[in-house]
Amino acid sequence: MESGSQSEGLGAFGWWLVAVSQALGMSMVVLTGVWMGQYHGGFSWDGSAHQFNIHPFCMVLGLFLYGDGVLVYRVFRNESKRPVKMLHALIHVMSMIIFLIGIVAVFGFHSSNKIPDMYSLHSWCGLATFIGFCIQWLMGFGFFLFPVASAWLRAWYLPLHKFFGVLMFALMTMSCLLGITEKLLFALPSTYSKFLPEGVLANCLGVLLLLFAALLGYLVTREEYRRPPNPEEEPLSVHFKTLNEEAASPRGSLTSP
Amino acid sequence: MESGSQSEGLGAFGWWLVAVSQALGMSMVVLTGVWMGQYHGGFSWDGSAHQFNIHPFCMVLGLFLYGDGVLVYRVFRNESKRPVKMLHALIHVMSMIIFLIGIVAVFGFHSSNKIPDMYSLHSWCGLATFIGFCIQWLMGFGFFLFPVASAWLRAWYLPLHKFFGVLMFALMTMSCLLGITEKLLFALPSTYSKFLPEGVLANCLGVLLLLFAALLGYLVTREEYRRPPNPEEEPLSVHFKTLNEEAASPRGSLTSP
Repeated sequence: MESGSQSEGLGAFGWWLVAVSQALGMSMVVLTGVWMGQYHGGFSWDGSAHQFNIHPFCMVLGLFLYGDGVLVYRVFRNESKRPVKMLHALIHVMSMIIFLIGIVAVFGFHSSNKIPDMYSLHSWCGLATFIGFCIQWLMGFGFFLFPVASAWLRAWYLPLHKFFGVLMFALMTMSCLLGITEKLLFALPSTYSKFLPEGVLANCLGVLLLLFAALLGYLVTREEYRRPPNPEEEPLSVHFKTLNEEAASPRGSLTSP
Repeated sequence: MESGSQSEGLGAFGWWLVAVSQALGMSMVVLTGVWMGQYHGGFSWDGSAHQFNIHPFCMVLGLFLYGDGVLVYRVFRNESKRPVKMLHALIHVMSMIIFLIGIVAVFGFHSSNKIPDMYSLHSWCGLATFIGFCIQWLMGFGFFLFPVASAWLRAWYLPLHKFFGVLMFALMTMSCLLGITEKLLFALPSTYSKFLPEGVLANCLGVLLLLFAALLGYLVTREEYRRPPNPEEEPLSVHFKTLNEEAASPRGSLTSP
């Protein structure tokens, strides 16, 4: 059964992992809502701490969407390439808008409360990641959706796009965890060490984020889960390398003798 | 020149990246030493805050060594496989011992100062990563250095070992960044936001750690930098998949027409 599910790529086993990743993703969004709602008074756009609360919620929701935007290449691995590309770009635009709302929310909160901006490692990492994500999105659009780049240029850029896509995802997760730590040390400076419910809940949120990122990372980098090549669909495919890889065949190398 | 350096794998271009990674690695170790030495009174094993200072220094040094332990497969990509494997295992044992000293140092400091253990997200991530690293090392030793596992079992485990190796590296980096944020918020609760030298220095340390991790991640996952297969060396090589990959040939697919 193990080798059967491996040889089918995203067969029975892979779908379970996708289902678990979605459960983790939804749990982390809900848990962020509960944390900000139950322990910090909920959400509003009025310059108060309630406006700050929008920031973690948007960043976690944006991360979930970003991960799913990468995952579409695995989930829709047997569909036509172009609609999947467009879905990938579209989900990432949505994720970018949600990140932007989260960033504007915290800058607005700082400005209303005379709190300096951009002094913490969290803010440095977070903003650099957001800028990197925007550049990555524009490059992806230019190279793969807009018919400008040559097949050679696309083939040159594809592995970089994939590497930086996974790197951005890791940096987003890291920025979220740094944000959780900052928030806990600001909110519970003397009681974080007492294992109070809020501290434990926020730590669990961090663990969920890590599990989501690790599982997504596994699903999108595992060789057998790669999109199978379709030479008829793309005669000038940027994936010509894949055509030569045994791993991309229905019977992957791991099931070879 | 570009395609020439790509086709040579770790040719001129790759060596520059390796050199930059080592410069980043050494800078981050020195910067941690400066941070703990200049701003927190240096090191000693006496239960005081000076004992705590050993913790960040060891964790950053251990991370540098861990990264280099992975990099040996790229740097010595044309050497015999077995000595490289042993070097990989040996560097990781050294890294593990240094991590352990760092962990014992902080537990000892907590115990001497009646500070609770294991309440923060940093401690949860850090300890889970260390335990994961130990398990990963033992599995690697059992599968690849101790002649027990069959070729099939090795081939099954190899991609998992690689994935979890990179994941552990990402988690170690993340744990270090969480530690930097914690330390800054404990040490400078009201002045971190004033861009004082200590805060900026520690933020820069975080950025160096991220750059080191990103560059190492690139060097060890880039297809063209993979170790070329040597069928004579290992007739039952676990890398039989690689033999079928055009990318592993001296002229990689990216230089194809």
